[in-house]
Amino acid sequence: MNTTMRLFILVAGLMFLAACSTLRGTGDMGVVIERASGSVQIIETSHQTRLGRIEGLGDLSHASVVYSRDERYAYVFGRDGGLTRIDILASRIDKRLLQSGNSIGGAISQDGSLVAVSNYTPGGIKVFDAETLELVADIPATYGRDRLRSKVVGLVDAPDQRFVFSLYDAGEIWIADFSMGRHPHITRFKQVGRQPYDGLITPDGRYYLAGLFGEDGLALLDLWHEEKGVRKILADYGRGSKKMPVYKMPHLEGWAMTEDYAFLPEVGRHEVLVVNRHNWKKVTSIPVYGQPVFVMARPDGRQIWVNYAFPDNDTVQVIDTEKLKVVQQLKPGKAVLHMEFTPRGEQVWISARDSNRVTVYDTFDFHEIKVLPADKPSGIFFTSRAHRIGL
Amino acid sequence: MNTTMRLFILVAGLMFLAACSTLRGTGDMGVVIERASGSVQIIETSHQTRLGRIEGLGDLSHASVVYSRDERYAYVFGRDGGLTRIDILASRIDKRLLQSGNSIGGAISQDGSLVAVSNYTPGGIKVFDAETLELVADIPATYGRDRLRSKVVGLVDAPDQRFVFSLYDAGEIWIADFSMGRHPHITRFKQVGRQPYDGLITPDGRYYLAGLFGEDGLALLDLWHEEKGVRKILADYGRGSKKMPVYKMPHLEGWAMTEDYAFLPEVGRHEVLVVNRHNWKKVTSIPVYGQPVFVMARPDGRQIWVNYAFPDNDTVQVIDTEKLKVVQQLKPGKAVLHMEFTPRGEQVWISARDSNRVTVYDTFDFHEIKVLPADKPSGIFFTSRAHRIGL
Repeated sequence: MNTTMRLFILVAGLMFLAACSTLRGTGDMGVVIERASGSVQIIETSHQTRLGRIEGLGDLSHASVVYSRDERYAYVFGRDGGLTRIDILASRIDKRLLQSGNSIGGAISQDGSLVAVSNYTPGGIKVFDAETLELVADIPATYGRDRLRSKVVGLVDAPDQRFVFSLYDAGEIWIADFSMGRHPHITRFKQVGRQPYDGLITPDGRYYLAGLFGEDGLALLDLWHEEKGVRKILADYGRGSKKMPVYKMPHLEGWAMTEDYAFLPEVGRHEVLVVNRHNWKKVTSIPVYGQPVFVMARPDGRQIWVNYAFPDNDTVQVIDTEKLKVVQQLKPGKAVLHMEFTPRGEQVWISARDSNRVTVYDTFDFHEIKVLPADKPSGIFFTSRAHRIGL
Repeated sequence: MNTTMRLFILVAGLMFLAACSTLRGTGDMGVVIERASGSVQIIETSHQTRLGRIEGLGDLSHASVVYSRDERYAYVFGRDGGLTRIDILASRIDKRLLQSGNSIGGAISQDGSLVAVSNYTPGGIKVFDAETLELVADIPATYGRDRLRSKVVGLVDAPDQRFVFSLYDAGEIWIADFSMGRHPHITRFKQVGRQPYDGLITPDGRYYLAGLFGEDGLALLDLWHEEKGVRKILADYGRGSKKMPVYKMPHLEGWAMTEDYAFLPEVGRHEVLVVNRHNWKKVTSIPVYGQPVFVMARPDGRQIWVNYAFPDNDTVQVIDTEKLKVVQQLKPGKAVLHMEFTPRGEQVWISARDSNRVTVYDTFDFHEIKVLPADKPSGIFFTSRAHRIGL
């Protein structure tokens, strides 16, 4: 055998090994947004390690992520209107476009074929083919006699190929229904309340709720009964008549739902509000460490984890959902921005932006499993979101 | 350049392409059990195609499957005590052992590190390292003064690294708690009812229910309050005093849970029982086509899909969970054995054993999306189960 042949066999063997070693399941993977550097880390939760890093994603302040139904591709929605499809297995950008001047979040349709982005400027949503990122529908958020365009917020996916979103300036909630193909049917609900600033959908995809910045209360839409329209619930929820200083409007995505209760961040108060899910009436409120931002349930509904706005943003507390009181307090670092549970709830990952780290906790005994370095980490998104309605 | 070098470059290039093409996400994958031939088909739900087939899995009658947390490996529990770890990306058997003479189902722990199998002969559960399949714990189901061993049924995983299961001959429910390491703490609940024959856990992992063959009613254990013990609910549920002929005891895994209701297959009657989830009292019963076997909720809780025992096993019906009545009837083939929803609920896959086919339906308008040939298909299991408590 000559030298070339030996080399050939060696290289072929190595490539075969490489091919085998690149095979991996995607069910335990996720991404961590590194907001300052416009990059994402790719991580896995089985051994809590970093697998890769992708740069060049633009302005990632307030960035969010949804996943393709095969859990291979993540769609990253940047603040600058950037929509990037990244391949988390190959650790590279697959496709990227700037689809508007200023955007805030997105959603993927139930069947995984459509990706929608909500835009501030110009206000509306744009819907893309999830495979090619070709534009499928452009839905301007036009309202009133003067045909102004509203900022769009609180965009989520709902069952039966629908997207639901709120018009901040117009005080409207719209449904874009793609169940009949790529030309959506739009339903508009007007005068739902002043300045809806964020929205959420319950885990079963039935109720859409919008938080209101311009008045107290919440707008509730039952998606099983569009004909009943939007109604106002929790009339006292919000900043109240005193209009106390609010350091950060709480996130609605974070609302925790258990079997009987919804747990809501009180606006401007050091309290978590507990509401009966069946009649949407207040049950009680739980005193906590600061102004809550994210109030998230462990997947089994046994615990609620809460982080806080400045100046209390070095702290996370855990509420027991039966005792309805705080049972644990942790200090994951400076400027805690986000928390993400593994799908069966045994771990929670917490980002601390100003400490440049992500801490992984065991939710059973609260011990620190691992600390991972990260460059100003913000949002954490696991692939299990691919399998959940509204995420 | 000589011929060898050209060949070298060609082969290296092809291998590189092969390496890239083997990359795929596992979130949209699944397996279909082919019971007669001891094989499984590997499929994907994005384009509804078959990706591969693995043979040599032994006796797969009544086989079930759980997934590793990365969604790459499926653990197949055979009727003959076979435990096989298959690699669904490489389409091959990774590890296989015969761990008992006769077994029925298994479970994977919350953190994915342990796989448990429930055995009839000799009665008990065995717990294996999920990576290596080395034996971690052998828990014989010994009961009474004579130290007899009971068949074990209804094995599920629960949060905090617990396995819960029922002892058919002993009338007991046991918890094996691995939260403190690999030496489990066992809790025994005695006299829970005669002959528990199957079990289920609610999707939040809180309640364990066992169906009773030897008497009417169900045994309920609140896993948040083990100290309260097991209590009997639905005293009338079962075969009743008439002991009418039952062609097949219904599966409990199939019980559908929506926000307010649980939908249960009535035993021996052509009815689906509707129960209030909060107090476990009967709300109503819905007349259906035959004796129900699986009664499964679409993930959004809007529909319930039901299949039936012989001689009505060519039919599937769909119940609307608000109207509480049948709204659709389908004929997917002869001997319909199982149904599986995609995680966001837009598709359902249905196996018809004696028609040698699997039919994929769109759950929005009930049209047939695809028909796939399969050799006596029974259970269908998608990787999204990896992310769900109790599956």
